Amino acid sequence: MESLQNSAEEQQYIFYKDNPWPNKQESTNNYKPGLSGFVLVHAGAGYHSESKAKEYKHVCKRACQQAVDRLKAGALAVEAVAAALVELEDSPFTNAGMGSNINLSGQIECDASIMDGKSLHYGAVGAISGIKNPVLVANRLLNEAQKGKLSAGRIPPCFLVGRGAHDWAVSHGVPACPSEKMATKFSLSAYKRNKRKMELAEKMDPGHNQTKKRRQSSRNENGSECLDTVGAIVVDMQGNVAAAVSSGGLAMKHPGRVGQAAHYGCGCWAENACNMNSYSTAVSTSGCGEHLIRTMLARECSAAMQSEDAHQALLEAMQNKFISSPFLASEDRVLGGVIVLRCCKCVEPQPSTNVKGCLVEFLWSHTTESMCVGYMSAQDSKAKKWTLGLPKAYTVLPMAAGGWD
Amino acid sequence: MESLQNSAEEQQYIFYKDNPWPNKQESTNNYKPGLSGFVLVHAGAGYHSESKAKEYKHVCKRACQQAVDRLKAGALAVEAVAAALVELEDSPFTNAGMGSNINLSGQIECDASIMDGKSLHYGAVGAISGIKNPVLVANRLLNEAQKGKLSAGRIPPCFLVGRGAHDWAVSHGVPACPSEKMATKFSLSAYKRNKRKMELAEKMDPGHNQTKKRRQSSRNENGSECLDTVGAIVVDMQGNVAAAVSSGGLAMKHPGRVGQAAHYGCGCWAENACNMNSYSTAVSTSGCGEHLIRTMLARECSAAMQSEDAHQALLEAMQNKFISSPFLASEDRVLGGVIVLRCCKCVEPQPSTNVKGCLVEFLWSHTTESMCVGYMSAQDSKAKKWTLGLPKAYTVLPMAAGGWD
Repeated sequence: MESLQNSAEEQQYIFYKDNPWPNKQESTNNYKPGLSGFVLVHAGAGYHSESKAKEYKHVCKRACQQAVDRLKAGALAVEAVAAALVELEDSPFTNAGMGSNINLSGQIECDASIMDGKSLHYGAVGAISGIKNPVLVANRLLNEAQKGKLSAGRIPPCFLVGRGAHDWAVSHGVPACPSEKMATKFSLSAYKRNKRKMELAEKMDPGHNQTKKRRQSSRNENGSECLDTVGAIVVDMQGNVAAAVSSGGLAMKHPGRVGQAAHYGCGCWAENACNMNSYSTAVSTSGCGEHLIRTMLARECSAAMQSEDAHQALLEAMQNKFISSPFLASEDRVLGGVIVLRCCKCVEPQPSTNVKGCLVEFLWSHTTESMCVGYMSAQDSKAKKWTLGLPKAYTVLPMAAGGWD
Repeated sequence: MESLQNSAEEQQYIFYKDNPWPNKQESTNNYKPGLSGFVLVHAGAGYHSESKAKEYKHVCKRACQQAVDRLKAGALAVEAVAAALVELEDSPFTNAGMGSNINLSGQIECDASIMDGKSLHYGAVGAISGIKNPVLVANRLLNEAQKGKLSAGRIPPCFLVGRGAHDWAVSHGVPACPSEKMATKFSLSAYKRNKRKMELAEKMDPGHNQTKKRRQSSRNENGSECLDTVGAIVVDMQGNVAAAVSSGGLAMKHPGRVGQAAHYGCGCWAENACNMNSYSTAVSTSGCGEHLIRTMLARECSAAMQSEDAHQALLEAMQNKFISSPFLASEDRVLGGVIVLRCCKCVEPQPSTNVKGCLVEFLWSHTTESMCVGYMSAQDSKAKKWTLGLPKAYTVLPMAAGGWD
């Protein structure tokens, strides 16, 4: 762990954020109450090849646009975040929905979850096959749970897996998709490459699973190539937050393996401000599922965002709750990334204008080689920014929130 | 929510604990270093019928004995807690393993998880069929993860579900069991009864899922009859803690539904003392899975146990993090129970004896009608106590811990 901690602090631990508290008076002059909202998306923390860079940029832009279109039409955050996820899942280049990583048995099994900061409801699916957009199943579970109990007082599920999840989805109107249509030339070639690599490794080290020493000797051979989970976080014009995440999971995973994208508190988190919390917060994670599960990184980062200095709080959360976490003490590499936003109501200091607004701060952090991120405000005509791990400073975006009180 | 909060404080919110800090000098005279350890088990929070009371008592006794036998033989906490769970799962009267609740499709699908406070590793299975002892699969996942990476640098899974979990279990030597052999006359008759009840409810209220109002009108019809998840928490002679939980899930659940018993932080939690935490803590929960998931009750109770007064801390955690939790604000009944232990090293105050020991406090709480609990120390010849929700005050049990330093 020592070398990782040191290198993380020096280089790998990249933060992008500047100017956490802009001049509110100046910012609020641009408020357009009732026409606001904001989305931040990611196409994973991991390694993004140069050859795919353009595609990642485009899909992030399209995902932002989808969410903003919904926000402008008056949709709540949870609906907008689902729309962003569908776009990210539909890209054959991301490891979610179409083009997901293929598992050990040559199948695609997806995880996804969504959380609504307003109702605090949550829906998730794990190891689901034959559904093009797993996030729509998670979203439908969330919606159904909000309706109350089923017949005979039965409590509606918030988490479904495997064949049962597939059947529930179809019976609730989510379209099925033959699994073979979800594989792409990229995912199939990656599967063949990974299979060869695995067979070679096992040939060279047939006793790989007999002793700890032998198993650790093969570390880093797979690396972070396949961690491009996708996610999004949104705040709507009423100041509600929502978060979602979707993933095809680790390449060559065992069938039935469920990663952080389906795990409550690990893949995403959204919580509106309340008596106890000054800020509404939303988080979506990416990286090695097992690391993100065992550290509950989404919820930890959300809790950290109640501190005064968001930048410092995320820095400390990533260091203390993830990189140096006692839960990952035995891991040689800790792989993960988060996108985070927090917002709070703010009032135009000039009483004459009486404009209420929602001040949004957004930031991200990752321990992986790169993380693909894009964002857009409902006031923007197109998604302005995206990055593949290049350090860049962002200012905080002020927003109007007509429904905030 | 109001009526629940009030009634919970008056009657439903039952606590069993007294004398949190016994006279250490007197207590430590009974220490037998190297021959100690302690187990607390539960056979669920819910409603335990009088007709089954004797059986619940016996299975709790046997589970305690199994754990203590392992502890006396020098086993670590995680091994002892798994042994207790196997005994609880094997009972046809509990809703775990053999005799689990039958789902909507007439199948048995089980959830289980286990956590080792020493390594902080965790293993879980969800919606697994055809395995008599799901906890053994969870335990095997935990053990395999501790060995490090798989071939070609692949990260071993900590959570498997469905068919994939079954196949992994069989390939790792966990015996399969035909699903039809796991049904008992009790579970089959409950299935038939529940099916009739459901059909009747849907006949009387065919539009039950069309509006929130209609769906809520059927509340409490199913009730807490089927919440008898099982679990155990253990501290071994070295002061390590471990926790486990296993469940057949809610009766008439949708296939693929996964409850708290497979959810990290929700079904069980175990965490040895460290620099930041004075106490080692272990928790196992029971109740409505969705409620326990959304409140992450196991982890919340564990965190609360770092307070000075364990009794007050659990009382507050159950009230603020569960009964009055904003995450369950829309629920008409909040159903759950926890067993909790915490321990810390203590030194015999008379320097001449120089005995080091481990002071254990254990307590439980539930919002349901009853909770079945039993406990045993490695010094006892048999499990001394068990209860089905009858208020009773317990003293704290001091223990020796030869390996504690």
